[in-house]
Amino acid sequence: MVVARIPFISPMNVIMKNLNIGMIGYGFMGRTHSNAYSQVNHFFPLKYKPVLKAVCARDAEKVRSFADQWGYESVETDWRKVVERKDIDAIDICTPNNLHKEIALAAAANGKMVLCEKPLSMNTAEGEEMVAAIERAGVPNTVWYNYRRAPAVTLAKQLIDSGKLGRIFHYRANFLQDWTISADLPQGGAALWRLDAAAAGSGVTGDLLAHCIDTALWLNGSITDVSAMTETFIKERKHTLTGQIEKVSIDDACTFFCHFKNGSLGLFESTRYARGHKALYTLEVNGEHASLKWDLHDLHRLQWFDHGDEGIVRGWRSVHVSDGDQPYMKNWWVPGLQIGYEHTFIHQVADFLKALEEGKPCSPTFREALETQKVCDAVISSAKERTWKTIAS
Amino acid sequence: MVVARIPFISPMNVIMKNLNIGMIGYGFMGRTHSNAYSQVNHFFPLKYKPVLKAVCARDAEKVRSFADQWGYESVETDWRKVVERKDIDAIDICTPNNLHKEIALAAAANGKMVLCEKPLSMNTAEGEEMVAAIERAGVPNTVWYNYRRAPAVTLAKQLIDSGKLGRIFHYRANFLQDWTISADLPQGGAALWRLDAAAAGSGVTGDLLAHCIDTALWLNGSITDVSAMTETFIKERKHTLTGQIEKVSIDDACTFFCHFKNGSLGLFESTRYARGHKALYTLEVNGEHASLKWDLHDLHRLQWFDHGDEGIVRGWRSVHVSDGDQPYMKNWWVPGLQIGYEHTFIHQVADFLKALEEGKPCSPTFREALETQKVCDAVISSAKERTWKTIAS
Amino acid sequence: MVVARIPFISPMNVIMKNLNIGMIGYGFMGRTHSNAYSQVNHFFPLKYKPVLKAVCARDAEKVRSFADQWGYESVETDWRKVVERKDIDAIDICTPNNLHKEIALAAAANGKMVLCEKPLSMNTAEGEEMVAAIERAGVPNTVWYNYRRAPAVTLAKQLIDSGKLGRIFHYRANFLQDWTISADLPQGGAALWRLDAAAAGSGVTGDLLAHCIDTALWLNGSITDVSAMTETFIKERKHTLTGQIEKVSIDDACTFFCHFKNGSLGLFESTRYARGHKALYTLEVNGEHASLKWDLHDLHRLQWFDHGDEGIVRGWRSVHVSDGDQPYMKNWWVPGLQIGYEHTFIHQVADFLKALEEGKPCSPTFREALETQKVCDAVISSAKERTWKTIAS
Amino acid sequence: MVVARIPFISPMNVIMKNLNIGMIGYGFMGRTHSNAYSQVNHFFPLKYKPVLKAVCARDAEKVRSFADQWGYESVETDWRKVVERKDIDAIDICTPNNLHKEIALAAAANGKMVLCEKPLSMNTAEGEEMVAAIERAGVPNTVWYNYRRAPAVTLAKQLIDSGKLGRIFHYRANFLQDWTISADLPQGGAALWRLDAAAAGSGVTGDLLAHCIDTALWLNGSITDVSAMTETFIKERKHTLTGQIEKVSIDDACTFFCHFKNGSLGLFESTRYARGHKALYTLEVNGEHASLKWDLHDLHRLQWFDHGDEGIVRGWRSVHVSDGDQPYMKNWWVPGLQIGYEHTFIHQVADFLKALEEGKPCSPTFREALETQKVCDAVISSAKERTWKTIAS
Repeated sequence: MVVARIPFISPMNVIMKNLNIGMIGYGFMGRTHSNAYSQVNHFFPLKYKPVLKAVCARDAEKVRSFADQWGYESVETDWRKVVERKDIDAIDICTPNNLHKEIALAAAANGKMVLCEKPLSMNTAEGEEMVAAIERAGVPNTVWYNYRRAPAVTLAKQLIDSGKLGRIFHYRANFLQDWTISADLPQGGAALWRLDAAAAGSGVTGDLLAHCIDTALWLNGSITDVSAMTETFIKERKHTLTGQIEKVSIDDACTFFCHFKNGSLGLFESTRYARGHKALYTLEVNGEHASLKWDLHDLHRLQWFDHGDEGIVRGWRSVHVSDGDQPYMKNWWVPGLQIGYEHTFIHQVADFLKALEEGKPCSPTFREALETQKVCDAVISSAKERTWKTIAS
Repeated sequence: MVVARIPFISPMNVIMKNLNIGMIGYGFMGRTHSNAYSQVNHFFPLKYKPVLKAVCARDAEKVRSFADQWGYESVETDWRKVVERKDIDAIDICTPNNLHKEIALAAAANGKMVLCEKPLSMNTAEGEEMVAAIERAGVPNTVWYNYRRAPAVTLAKQLIDSGKLGRIFHYRANFLQDWTISADLPQGGAALWRLDAAAAGSGVTGDLLAHCIDTALWLNGSITDVSAMTETFIKERKHTLTGQIEKVSIDDACTFFCHFKNGSLGLFESTRYARGHKALYTLEVNGEHASLKWDLHDLHRLQWFDHGDEGIVRGWRSVHVSDGDQPYMKNWWVPGLQIGYEHTFIHQVADFLKALEEGKPCSPTFREALETQKVCDAVISSAKERTWKTIAS
Repeated sequence: MVVARIPFISPMNVIMKNLNIGMIGYGFMGRTHSNAYSQVNHFFPLKYKPVLKAVCARDAEKVRSFADQWGYESVETDWRKVVERKDIDAIDICTPNNLHKEIALAAAANGKMVLCEKPLSMNTAEGEEMVAAIERAGVPNTVWYNYRRAPAVTLAKQLIDSGKLGRIFHYRANFLQDWTISADLPQGGAALWRLDAAAAGSGVTGDLLAHCIDTALWLNGSITDVSAMTETFIKERKHTLTGQIEKVSIDDACTFFCHFKNGSLGLFESTRYARGHKALYTLEVNGEHASLKWDLHDLHRLQWFDHGDEGIVRGWRSVHVSDGDQPYMKNWWVPGLQIGYEHTFIHQVADFLKALEEGKPCSPTFREALETQKVCDAVISSAKERTWKTIAS
Repeated sequence: MVVARIPFISPMNVIMKNLNIGMIGYGFMGRTHSNAYSQVNHFFPLKYKPVLKAVCARDAEKVRSFADQWGYESVETDWRKVVERKDIDAIDICTPNNLHKEIALAAAANGKMVLCEKPLSMNTAEGEEMVAAIERAGVPNTVWYNYRRAPAVTLAKQLIDSGKLGRIFHYRANFLQDWTISADLPQGGAALWRLDAAAAGSGVTGDLLAHCIDTALWLNGSITDVSAMTETFIKERKHTLTGQIEKVSIDDACTFFCHFKNGSLGLFESTRYARGHKALYTLEVNGEHASLKWDLHDLHRLQWFDHGDEGIVRGWRSVHVSDGDQPYMKNWWVPGLQIGYEHTFIHQVADFLKALEEGKPCSPTFREALETQKVCDAVISSAKERTWKTIAS
């Protein structure tokens, strides 16, 4: 395109229909979702407009402050009231994992759309119950596996689907962090429920690997069997709620390899003990003709290798995903100007609203997210039993 | 900090005072500024809250659409009306450069605060007039040299000011783009006024080098003299407004070296003919004890070299500027999650509003931005006359 | 050091004793070893000087040409003659793996020192026989796991041994190539014996993972148990020797995870189907206080992360291992000037000769290399039986 | 090529003619040249074979030690004897710059070939005298601008000559070091003659920029005019020979911009005060259709951007220059295995010997190297006089 740096045209919103949101939970994910609802119509031409109708949490004072900050019209302290309110169209579940099922079932029973934080559930059994309920209700639904909508990851999907990679041999992903290395860090409670299996279901498997697995299933299809190893490096920590030193119930690290249905091999690893990595989610796909890599720490770049390039200048290309012909980017700035983490959520809302317009599902649906749950469960039990596990299809 | 990945605490806004904004112009910068006003109170605890009171442009239909998208309460098609409106506190100037002076003078005369896009003016003479007017009026003012507020650049400032680098030997910056290489690209008009000296004042010098110079003056102090070379690679282009092939009036490329008052040497380059670079603004500072580098294409990273590190493991550190103890970042997400381009504008608004609270100026003020103008003028005339030029201090 | 770029002082060789080498095999490794013998005294101050006494291969004409090129004094076509020659002190085994044992045993029986290419043997049983023979003979011996002597890897060893990393949590390594993706590539014969299990013992496990395992055992101690997966992507290839399409007997890809005796987790992968990677041997070690990474494609660099660095400028350091205080580098050029692949072999010869002087063993000895063989065997059988395997200590 | 990782075929040397070398000087460059002579026939198929006939230096004991190390057959302490010896074919000049002219003239007068270290001379006048003498004598000659023969740089030449870049807009190079920052470093004498203008002619201009200029002239053609700035940061240092504090006579840093005859702009910088850079020689060429970059710190890589690539996957390619179809690399190892600094000298000797075989000149000849001298002189005088200088063509 000749005039590539002329600013992309601002989108225009022709007709607006309100979509009234009731959000339950207001922690870290409450912020990312609220931001997404606030921003989506500024950048994407859509018929629907989210309205921040209500936010719910147990602490009345804190939830009021949160509502003020983001412009929620009302607050609730009992989530059951939110799912029953007539003026609310969609329930957004941002609570710890152990509440996902109950809320989703109630929301579905009240005919509400549901946007649920990942992972879908504590385990496969819960997830199956949720899928059944949501599909019985026939309401639009999605699970916030936001990294699919990093433009570079969406571009990866587009490249794979185009057939440019040919037969896939390897899929590789990891999610490495280092924030729990200190033995002084407590577990549990509002800030640290991710370290408590009673609230989270599992450790890095559900928190981090679930992201890697969701992206993998999307990019490379089904996983058929897995063999896994987990470890808990720090065996005991003080629990925030009890004040007592208690056994740590989560997996601190988890590694597994697997077969994909397409014949390729998978290798996945996650840990919170990789000193030097804050949130290093990387993925790599090796195909017969081309390969690609991505890294959350520089999420606006895709690494691309095309074996079809002339031999003397063949090499990995560092693609700065900021051009108007790359996924989502014509709605943002001009080439060379990067976007960040929170945009992945804005993209998911944009796609959800567009899907509403078109009467289509917004991937990943509860049913799709259930597949990730199955793999997570197989991984956990494989590690426990030190044996391969097959994924029921 | 033990619990580094516990989400940073959401800021709370205690008391809110409205700051009514009237924005003139609605192009690319209109979007970045509107976004900044919309977002700032979601992430920064401030007493002031910008209200999008009016936006102004000549095309009534388009400006209406823009106002709808961003939630401006009203539109105007004559900027003089905006600067006179009683319900407006601050004028934001986003027009092409040739209107900056007239609007700023009128705004000042009406006692409005002024936030002016960079560069301040077409030339030093205009800039001096603007500084005089704004200071006579005694109104808060700032110029949108947004890159100062990329967290990595602000961190650079903090490191330099701490004395960690010691005596500075070299300051090096460039801003390389490649979007005007095609001879088929026209010049002038609403979309391409940056290619027309009548609207822009100069080419890459005012558009790109001005950013580099502003940051340099901020980080490394005054420039005393310069020697420059400019080039116009494509001599004629069709003009959008006249439809005629006309002589290109801007500099396509500009390079200069200089002395800083602190004894260090400066080297600056900008071009729109560097194939492969979309918006590569880089800077590097070499000091006696340490050096640092930054690159807009990965704006969330700072490269840092500390000669005091143990010799066997000494090397450039790639610092992912996303921790709560790094500038602005405690207001965003958690470590490892990057922000992007538009955040630099949000930070400038946050700082402007904080400065209002505290009754302090928000850097760069008109007076400070005038220094950049002086260097730009010296550069242009040095190139024309093929001789060194001294900067009047 | 103030004068860091003053060239490192040229080493001087005081007294010279000849060490007469008889090399068996003359392929790729024949070249790397011949080069190492030719170069070592130019750069390292040593009392011993290798003399290229004889080279042996079945093709008389080709071995003569090779001898001329490298200055071997004589040629042989029967390796048994070489191991029996009185004028030879040390036998260098560069043949395909299936000849290692027989030659090593004969060499030991004749009282020759032995330098054996890796992997030590076709399997653990062979390896044990070799260790017994060489130790019974009491002759100096070493196995060419050359990557230990990449200066950055040796530096990694030094850093780990210093305790700077603290408790180790993770060890991660892979060796990725892409040269066998084409189904048209034949297997077997002089050029492609690595694709034939009858000559090589295994595929990527013995060829590539053996390197990763050797380095891991050296850096991180013993492996206690493993769980592995292997794959052969292309099931049949034409055999160079028979001209027939035959079943492919090797593993094209191999992945395993494991526990180290020190409590850390290991993750290893190798493949020749990772499009875009020519010879990507990477390793990473995550410790409580620090982490390090290395990559064969840029072998002169070590990545180093020190959590003890001040928070605001903490990041991965890219250490250019070319300074005089870094391993082996004072013997080469000046800081900033990199060395390459072949130097790892020169370093091993230098260390072997120095060890001779001092009457010490040169690591890895046959006994040490046997440990790698045990892990390889456990990996192959774990993959076959889809179960964990314990490594006999 | 299907079998890309089958080791490149070892070269064979059919007929050998000795080329007797007499080397004058034995410092850092003495080592790189001696190594090149020792190695060239091991890797390159050539009819000529360098023989290390004599090495000359004033210190009899040290030169004897050096000769022993490298296998020189004899030593001399008076360079005049070397240039007169009948058994010597070629004189290699490795002395400080202030001796180049006298030795070259004497060598030419004796009908010897001459291989002269860079820069050719102390200044243009000397250089012209040398060119006249060498051309009058009609002897083969070359100047050791070794970086041309880094495979990635030679590949750059091949790409530019192929026309793939189209019209060139920008040529950019720098050479940054940091080893003279300490004020305690003395100047002058055997180890530090590069800091003494009486021995070196100039500072970074002749030592470092000369490399950048030579490569630039080779890749991008003639320079027509220059404007330069130099600086001496540390004004006085102890002189090694006198023991006195003396004025520093060299340029510590030098920057210039220029026009090339082909219409492109050049920008060059060199310094020994860029903390964190050991020997960072980088170059970048921006053309209409493609761009390339190179960096001595990772000399085995070329960065390549091709605007013709499909938009969504366009990006800078990091080309690992280690394949058999890339310059010089079929003579080394297998893809993915890098070579280092000293190989650039081996390549120059290989090319010199091949040129001898073919009766052709080996670039850069004295005449070609004189062009670099002219630019250096113009740069120095431009900086002194603060004005543009034209290069006489």
